[in-house]
Formats: sequence, C-alpha cells, structure tokens
Amino acid sequence: MSLDEAAMKPHDRLSAHLAGDMESVNALIRERMASEHAPRIPEVTAHLVEAGGKRLRPLLTLAAARLCGYGGPYHVHLAATVEFIHTATLLHDDVVDESKQRRGRPTANLLWDNKSSVLVGDYLFSRSFQLMVETGSLRVLDILANASATIAEGEVLQLTAAQDLATDEGVYLKVVRGKTAALFSAATEVGGVIAEAPEDQVRALYTYGDALGIAFQIVDDLLDYGGATETIGKNVGDDFRERKLTLPVIKAVAQASEEERAFWRRVIEKGDQREGDLEQAMALMARHGAMEAARADALGWAARAKAALAALPDHPLRAMLSDLADFVVARVS
Amino acid sequence: MSLDEAAMKPHDRLSAHLAGDMESVNALIRERMASEHAPRIPEVTAHLVEAGGKRLRPLLTLAAARLCGYGGPYHVHLAATVEFIHTATLLHDDVVDESKQRRGRPTANLLWDNKSSVLVGDYLFSRSFQLMVETGSLRVLDILANASATIAEGEVLQLTAAQDLATDEGVYLKVVRGKTAALFSAATEVGGVIAEAPEDQVRALYTYGDALGIAFQIVDDLLDYGGATETIGKNVGDDFRERKLTLPVIKAVAQASEEERAFWRRVIEKGDQREGDLEQAMALMARHGAMEAARADALGWAARAKAALAALPDHPLRAMLSDLADFVVARVS
Repeated sequence: MSLDEAAMKPHDRLSAHLAGDMESVNALIRERMASEHAPRIPEVTAHLVEAGGKRLRPLLTLAAARLCGYGGPYHVHLAATVEFIHTATLLHDDVVDESKQRRGRPTANLLWDNKSSVLVGDYLFSRSFQLMVETGSLRVLDILANASATIAEGEVLQLTAAQDLATDEGVYLKVVRGKTAALFSAATEVGGVIAEAPEDQVRALYTYGDALGIAFQIVDDLLDYGGATETIGKNVGDDFRERKLTLPVIKAVAQASEEERAFWRRVIEKGDQREGDLEQAMALMARHGAMEAARADALGWAARAKAALAALPDHPLRAMLSDLADFVVARVS
Repeated sequence: MSLDEAAMKPHDRLSAHLAGDMESVNALIRERMASEHAPRIPEVTAHLVEAGGKRLRPLLTLAAARLCGYGGPYHVHLAATVEFIHTATLLHDDVVDESKQRRGRPTANLLWDNKSSVLVGDYLFSRSFQLMVETGSLRVLDILANASATIAEGEVLQLTAAQDLATDEGVYLKVVRGKTAALFSAATEVGGVIAEAPEDQVRALYTYGDALGIAFQIVDDLLDYGGATETIGKNVGDDFRERKLTLPVIKAVAQASEEERAFWRRVIEKGDQREGDLEQAMALMARHGAMEAARADALGWAARAKAALAALPDHPLRAMLSDLADFVVARVS
C-alpha cells in the first residue's frame, strides 16, 4: 500500500481497489434501470442511484467475491442486485417515513409523488430479481429471498415498534437486521457463494456483514442525537420527532424513573412533543449513560465483524474490510 | 360431467375439480403469511386473502400443471406464489389509486394506513420469492422474474399514460399485460414448466394465459362503464373519474371530432370534470361504436385463448379452461 493509499478512508480504498469491477456494476445498473416505455422509471432511479451514494453494499459483494478468488462475471450482477434492492428499499422507506430529504437532496416522493416511489421501487425489486436469476445459482437466490423477507418483516416491525415503549433490545436487533444488517450480510455472503468458497468462509462473510450492518445502524442511531446535519444528511432529532425507539432511547427507557417514564410516554407513545423535549431526552440519555452504552455495543459489533475475517484468506481486501469495521464506529469513538 | 356440474360456472368447476390441491394451497398461504414478530402482517394479509377472492390465478397454475400430468408437490408452491404476488400487487395498487373499496370491502390502506399496505406488500413479494425458490426450478424463477418486471413496468406506464390522450392501443396493450395478463400467462406457463411439459404445450399455456388476461381486462374496462356496483365491487365511472385511458375511451378518442377532443382534453388531461360529464363520455363512446369495438376485441382474445388449448392434452381440465375463456367474455356478450 502506498502512503497515499494509507491516508484514504477504507471505503475509498475498496473503491480504488475494485474500480474496474465497480465500473461494470455501474454500467449494468444504468442498462437495467432503463425502461423503453416508462421514462418515469429511469428518471426516479437516476435521482437516487446517481445521488452520490457510497455504493457500500455492492462494494461488499465485489470485495467478498474477489477475496475468495472469484474470476467469473456474476459478482457484478450480484453487486447490481444488492444496489437495486437497497434503492428500492429507500424509495419505499421514504414513502413510509414521509421523508423530504435523503443524502442532502429532496426525496423522490417529494419530487414526483408517492405513487411513483412505490411503483418504481417495485420495478427495481423485479429488476434485481431478474439479475440474480441470471447468475443461475439457486443458493444465491435462496439467500437473497430470505434477506428480502427479513428486510420486509423488519420494516413492518419497525412500524409497530416505533411509538411503543415496550420495545426492548431484542426487538431492536430484529428491526436493525431488517433495516440494515440483512442486506449487508446477504451482500457479503453471496460474494462468497458465487466464488464457491468453503463453507467456513461463507459463514465468516455472513457474520462479518451482519455485525458490520448492526454496528453501522447503531452508529446511525447515535449520530441522530449528536451528528451535524452536513455529515449525515439529516437533522439531529429526526428519529426523536418520528418517535423511533432507537438503541439509546431504549437503554434510557429501561433505566427510567417513574417521572422519566411519564416523559417518554408523552413524547414517544402519545407523540405530544413540545419545545425543549429533544434536549430533555438527550439529558435523560446522558444521565443513564445510554449513549455510552450504545457506543460500547457498536464497538462490540465492529470487533465481532473483524474477528470473523480471520477465517478468510490473507488479502489486501481483507485488511480493507477490517479497517472498514473500525471506520464505521470511528464516527462515534 | 354430471348435470349438476354442467350447470356450474367454469370457475366453480375448476375449483371443484382441484379442491384437494386448492386446500393445500390455502394451507400453505396461511402458513407463509404468518409472522412471529410482526402481527400486522397476517392481519393485513388475511383481510385481503380471506376476502373471498376468486383465487383464479392459483387455479390456473394448478389446472395447467395437472393438465400436463404433474404428480409432484410444487404446483402448490407455485399457485401460492402467484396468489401472493397478486395480493401484493393489490395492496400497492390500492395505495397508488387511493382506493377505498376492494371486493366490496374497505381497502387495507383505509383500514390501516398506506405504510402498512406498502410494507406488507413488500413482505408478500419476498414470501412469494421464497416459495418459488423452493421449487428449485431456475426456469420457473426466470418466468416469474420477467413477469414481475412486466407487471411493475406496466403499472408505472399506466401512471403516466393515465391522463395522456396520446395513449394508443399499443400502449394500452402494454399496460394491460402489466396489470393483468403477465401474471395470468406466468401462472399457466409455470404450471406447464413444473410438469416438464413439451415446449409446444408450455408455449400454448403461455398464450392461453396471456389472451385470457387481456380479454379479462378489456371486459373489466367495459363493465366500468356499464356494470352494476354489486357485480364488480366498484362504481360505474371509477376509471373515468381516475382519468384512465381504457380501451373504449381510446377508441372513442381516436375517432373524436375537434369538439369532442376538446371535451376529452378537459375531462381526462385537465381533470376538470363536471356534472353530466360521465354521461357525455358514454354518449360519445356509443356514437363511435367504441363499446362495441372493444367488446369485439375481447371476444377475439377469448377465441385466441381457446384456440391455444388445441395443443394441450384432451382432459376435463382443458374443457373447463376453454369454458372459462367463454365465460370471461360472456359478462359483456
């Protein structure tokens, strides 16, 4: 690794190392998001796909496949599959959350309408489905079908768990797996499967993706109560205003006094939020060390992700994946 | 066939003939719509799945497989798959169309909310995907992936074509294939594929489903301008109020005088609809024989569906499928 490379973020190093593959992925994405008859589809998709997203999930698939010595063409299909599923999920999420901004830009549901977001999301799901069928691997299809079901179930669970103070860390983990970790772990696992890697390596890739995804989401939850708008593209307190039971809140609620519980019931369950409530919520989380404890959990998951990599071949990509796990939690360390 | 059976509608005869298989399908549907963690999912799904729908699509799959001599278990999986895809599509459609009634009952988006309809629809798509992977047939997966893409593309196309007088019969056919025929043809085709029927029979099953679906949709369009609410579960003129370019309207617009075009532009493109406009639209369609011409098209598609059946084995199910094609168009004959 050159000195220049060493100074780059792990994500950028992955991008540089996999630049050729990533170009093929981008070409495939552009080709498959086209629709001869319904120009609304590429319009809406381009808005999201070309919004400068980090392409983290397709990079994970490419890295996993290459790390396991894959030399065929289908890791590109799988990387595009994973990005399409992710984009489709974002489109539907923004409808469900009534979001107005994503990655610092207006959301598709705001620029077009909810109808377009729902239907173009469905279209991208079906396109991702076609791409994975092209790999001819039933095992890959099985993994992605199960990931899709976990994602959808997690989203519905989040819908009902939001606003419910009875949500505990077990439910939280299920929601997070659906929201983030299921696609991360499917992304890494299918990379190993398409490379026909030994079973212990495939399992290790699954574990890495799962733990990385959970760490990633906990960090996201933490930043919502402390990150600056420009770094995360959303406003501090968005989760609070949407009455989401994120990890720091769950930890604070678990230790709340009777008076504090009354506060949480009012702002989260009843949704009766007033001036100063966000600050009060943050003070309660600080009082019970909820932010600290959530941070420790994130570090634990990152450590688990790194430990899983030991089963994989020694390779520059393995080092980058390890650094990536550190980097994800460095935002809150 | 007994006299009693002869008096039954073809759809009921199919149900009776395939009752054992259909029981297995219903059991599988109930099993797979369950969700341990998100009770909202079976609630919403049961509302639709148990609303007394005709189960026409799963019956087509079962009939196609049995007609081709299938003796294995996977036609049941495929029939459940097709019903899940259909139900998911209905959930998303009702959000997109802002519908308040479906099969004479309030829609899920009205009883719960749009969020639940979007996410439970996604969940059912992913469950259908798991079911089809279980068949282990890549060809079946390919057919259903392509059908999903056609469905989604057709829905987006309908969204943009809906208020555009330039929509011609070619675009209409693409919308109808997406809306109805793609799932009908996939339903029959996968039945033949799972039975490992010869290629000409698989093609015939595809053609039958495609033509039946198109006939079905044209009849639906016609009934919207003339059926009674109690038979179709929606109100006369719903399509008109939603400014949909259905076949009779397209035919009337194609023959419109300048003055008539101004009327269509106002009511369909601008959406400026007043008292008496529905009656005026129906008078214009009558003047140009648009209803008659659309009816003739529907009869033509039904005839094509029946003709395709000639390639299939002589079997009581084949006769029922033939009668079904007649029955679909009998509603407007």
